[in-house]
Amino acid sequence: MATNTAAERRDSERRAYNANLADCPGHELLAILSNKWVTLALSALADGPRRHSELSQIIAGASQKMLSQTLRQLERDGLLTRTVTASVPARVDYALTPLGESLLPIQRAIKAWAETHVEDVHNARINYDDQR
Amino acid sequence: MATNTAAERRDSERRAYNANLADCPGHELLAILSNKWVTLALSALADGPRRHSELSQIIAGASQKMLSQTLRQLERDGLLTRTVTASVPARVDYALTPLGESLLPIQRAIKAWAETHVEDVHNARINYDDQR
Repeated sequence: MATNTAAERRDSERRAYNANLADCPGHELLAILSNKWVTLALSALADGPRRHSELSQIIAGASQKMLSQTLRQLERDGLLTRTVTASVPARVDYALTPLGESLLPIQRAIKAWAETHVEDVHNARINYDDQR
Repeated sequence: MATNTAAERRDSERRAYNANLADCPGHELLAILSNKWVTLALSALADGPRRHSELSQIIAGASQKMLSQTLRQLERDGLLTRTVTASVPARVDYALTPLGESLLPIQRAIKAWAETHVEDVHNARINYDDQR
């Protein structure tokens, strides 16, 4: 029986690409990173732990509700820890876990690509539209 | 006048983080990459040019309309080229541009992180929910 024909290779490629469709871990990560407040919270914690009050000053655009919801989601995803110190008023600190830290290089790569190339994408769109 | 106080550093950080909110090139890139068909089309072209008919065989889950729309979007964004060869039937080839190729390492990094760590995220969620 012939092996590795063009049709068989095509078939194996098709299975490989379509595996993405079924369980799609990459898209789950993209769904996490696509949230603007998640990106800002991870960035704000990149240099070390922060108190809740610091985060709400830095991420000035987020409402208190949105910030709390974002931090809870990241804690639930195992990307940060929340530590409450009994004091008056209670002190709450957030810090990235090793899992959260492992996301930072990807976040930086996305930011770097975008800052270097988004202008090219915009120019390409203008050229494309002009030619039609 | 005192310079570089904690308050000033905080203020400068806040401006830096919130710059993301204003023009947000990173989120524009995430919006491009978050599209499942875009991801599959870029992957399918990673090893070299493909004919339209090959792409539609490999990306089996996409309808013809969805595939055409995705390829047109990527051409408009300057990420791939479309070449029509006059023949009967007409032959259409797609290839990544250098700009499109520059996205592949990011796409691979996202895929690798997700394949290594999405299980950790799932486990973290189960632990978090169990404790509540």
